[in-house]
Amino acid sequence: MKISCSKTNLLNGIQTVFRAVSSKSTMSIIECILIDTTEGKIKLTANNMELAIETILEGEIKEPGIVALEAKILQDIVRHLPENDIVLSTDDNCLTTIKCEKSKFNILGKRGDDFPRLPEVEKDDPFVISQMTLKDIVRQTIFSIAENDSNKIMSGELLEVRNNEMKLVSLDGHRISIRKLALKNKHDDIKVIIPGKTLNEVSKIVAGDTEKDIQIFFTDKHVLFEFDQTVIVSRIIEGEYFNVNQMLSNDYETKLVINKKDFLGCIERATLLVKEGDKKPIIITIGDGTMELKINSAIGSMNEEIEIEKEGEDIMIGFNPKFLIDALRVIDDETITLYMVNPKAPCTIKDEDENYIYLILPVNFNTVN
Amino acid sequence: MKISCSKTNLLNGIQTVFRAVSSKSTMSIIECILIDTTEGKIKLTANNMELAIETILEGEIKEPGIVALEAKILQDIVRHLPENDIVLSTDDNCLTTIKCEKSKFNILGKRGDDFPRLPEVEKDDPFVISQMTLKDIVRQTIFSIAENDSNKIMSGELLEVRNNEMKLVSLDGHRISIRKLALKNKHDDIKVIIPGKTLNEVSKIVAGDTEKDIQIFFTDKHVLFEFDQTVIVSRIIEGEYFNVNQMLSNDYETKLVINKKDFLGCIERATLLVKEGDKKPIIITIGDGTMELKINSAIGSMNEEIEIEKEGEDIMIGFNPKFLIDALRVIDDETITLYMVNPKAPCTIKDEDENYIYLILPVNFNTVN
Repeated sequence: MKISCSKTNLLNGIQTVFRAVSSKSTMSIIECILIDTTEGKIKLTANNMELAIETILEGEIKEPGIVALEAKILQDIVRHLPENDIVLSTDDNCLTTIKCEKSKFNILGKRGDDFPRLPEVEKDDPFVISQMTLKDIVRQTIFSIAENDSNKIMSGELLEVRNNEMKLVSLDGHRISIRKLALKNKHDDIKVIIPGKTLNEVSKIVAGDTEKDIQIFFTDKHVLFEFDQTVIVSRIIEGEYFNVNQMLSNDYETKLVINKKDFLGCIERATLLVKEGDKKPIIITIGDGTMELKINSAIGSMNEEIEIEKEGEDIMIGFNPKFLIDALRVIDDETITLYMVNPKAPCTIKDEDENYIYLILPVNFNTVN
Repeated sequence: MKISCSKTNLLNGIQTVFRAVSSKSTMSIIECILIDTTEGKIKLTANNMELAIETILEGEIKEPGIVALEAKILQDIVRHLPENDIVLSTDDNCLTTIKCEKSKFNILGKRGDDFPRLPEVEKDDPFVISQMTLKDIVRQTIFSIAENDSNKIMSGELLEVRNNEMKLVSLDGHRISIRKLALKNKHDDIKVIIPGKTLNEVSKIVAGDTEKDIQIFFTDKHVLFEFDQTVIVSRIIEGEYFNVNQMLSNDYETKLVINKKDFLGCIERATLLVKEGDKKPIIITIGDGTMELKINSAIGSMNEEIEIEKEGEDIMIGFNPKFLIDALRVIDDETITLYMVNPKAPCTIKDEDENYIYLILPVNFNTVN
């Protein structure tokens, strides 16, 4: 095999597929990037068996062929070469030469035969969404998937399409995050659980162009994302997602409108007094026109007042400050609305059209503290 | 004690002295910052017994007093407060309240009595140098102090003033770095070994203003740096520094002029093939008009040619690439000149006026490799 392409193109391609390179594996082949030019294009592939990424490079194929190169070394070398054209060639023993200007590297590659192929996903009836929108809604929900894999379903997000509306949902037993989106084009119903890791990687790789779309295809085992010159394939999580609708309610006793930045700043300050692992709640006392926030810990105490608009009952309620912070950080609105029922029932943060819904369980607290 | 000052001033002051806060100590008092207003100024002090920093804040003293506050918590709190005036007050039990807008923190401080005082250094006959110059010459020499403290003298730098010339020297047994500076004003001779850590911290704290000076005072045990509203005091290292002059020589067999960026880029690429801890040398073969660089490792091999201007003998010589990289990174010249004698004698990189001299020992290599 022999190819020639610009350093920029090759480096971009490597960095795109790199996210699917296995870092530690008993199979050394999946720590490699496959370079395959047998189909008339320069195709890079990485596949860690959970996630596979393929991208097409612009460049010239001088001799068709296929080789697998250790991803980390390949990336390091290409990154440090001068900004010029690179010629990469292999001999029959997979000895690979990478040349750029007067610099020449020799590294030993592996035969491409053992490299795991991408699962086949038939590409019909794509679900289409703008790259920017996908990035946004993933960012606004991904934080509340479960951190460990003890419950497989909670480690993913539900993607649901129904009645021209798309919904992305995550939950971890303490909170639920929901983002809804009205769709321009009609699409058949979809209900699939996508691994959180996959959504994370996809949203990091897409450029986030508002003008550009991403196409998504589904089978009963896999989801495939296609955009620009890149394809990402991932397993989906099997099983039935939680019935989130029955956990939501529109009833409330207290409704309050608050400046998001003030509220977030105050909670962030409060957490300074909480050491990691310590589960001190932040205690919120809501009266007419003001909310008082208080925290008490071994380090010290803090309290602060914030102006609010209140409707309904006064209430005193405790929260894990991290859960409030996570939700507030991803909401783009300047003022937000909170709905509460009582100190033991979930609090809901949502906008009028329910484009976003964040439901957070309160925590018990000792009022003596 | 009660003071009022802007968040910006307080935070800057905390960050300035923070570098002398002990992070892990059996004496909890030296993990604190002392706030002392008994002398009519708001003075912050940190002192880890090796290094002490004092700085004066602009602000209003409402009640004079003194308190020691845990540095990390104080910094965290102040950093997260709104951009406004902060009122900090303590009661007789050292319970400290920090107020800003509607936010109020309570933390427990310590009595200031146990806080270690700064060593006394008489301030006469200051040695004066611009902040920018000090930063530069430290950056250009600090990398070749010895990493561990097994040889105390090698963990510091020699600062020598003689005949209107200042010299800063570091060495670690494999290399020597020297920066010289012609002085505008006459000063008595100085010969003192300053801990590398101290120079590092000082050069991080000074703003690096070309217009502003730093004053340095010496006693037989301490060095004191004074600039802006800040004083830094450090122990000096006792003992006699190495006789560096007798290690230098002006003889050479090969002299070559090379583009610094090309040379550095090439060595940086070569080190990609060297795993940490592996001591593979880079082998340099100098002929007429070209230098060839080669490296061979378990990962692969690399070679590259660079154009040079040569005078004298051809030579083949091996180096630890890190030592070359360290020196090349701090030289600001576009082209540099190297002087070599033979494959076992030190190589010297220096400019015509010897404003900088970097001497690097070569390493043995197996030519079969």
